[in-house]
Amino acid sequence: MTESLQLTVTGMTCGGCENAVKRVVSKLPGVEAVSADHHAGLVGVEFDPAQVTPQAIRAEIEAIGYDVAP
Amino acid sequence: MTESLQLTVTGMTCGGCENAVKRVVSKLPGVEAVSADHHAGLVGVEFDPAQVTPQAIRAEIEAIGYDVAP
Repeated sequence: MTESLQLTVTGMTCGGCENAVKRVVSKLPGVEAVSADHHAGLVGVEFDPAQVTPQAIRAEIEAIGYDVAP
Repeated sequence: MTESLQLTVTGMTCGGCENAVKRVVSKLPGVEAVSADHHAGLVGVEFDPAQVTPQAIRAEIEAIGYDVAP
C-alpha cells in the first residue's frame, strides 16, 4: 500500500538543494518516489506506511538543514 | 590530533547546498569543523583521523548528490 505526503519545505533555493532532499529521502526504506520543487517549496513523497512514517521523512529533510512546515 | 582536508565539490549552486553539505559532514563522528563555498566549489573539513577517514567524508557528500573530485 502506498500513501502520498506533500510537505512545504523552506530553504531549498536551487536544483542542487532539490537533489539533496531527494537523495536523503529516497534512502529511507519504504520510500517509493520523491519529487522536490524549490520554486514552489514543495516535496512530494510516495511511501509505504508500514515501513516508514511521515515523521521520519520530515526528520530526514530537517537533518540536512531545510525547514519543514508543521 | 586534527587533520585538514580540502575537497573540490561540484554541484553546490547556492547557500542551501552549502548548508546541506555542512550538515551531513558535521554529523560524522570525528569531524570538528566544516566549511563550504559554492562559488569556489570547495569544502574544507577539520577531522580526527583516528575517528573518521577522508573516504567516509567524501562518501557522505556524494550520498546527497554532489560530486567530489578525485
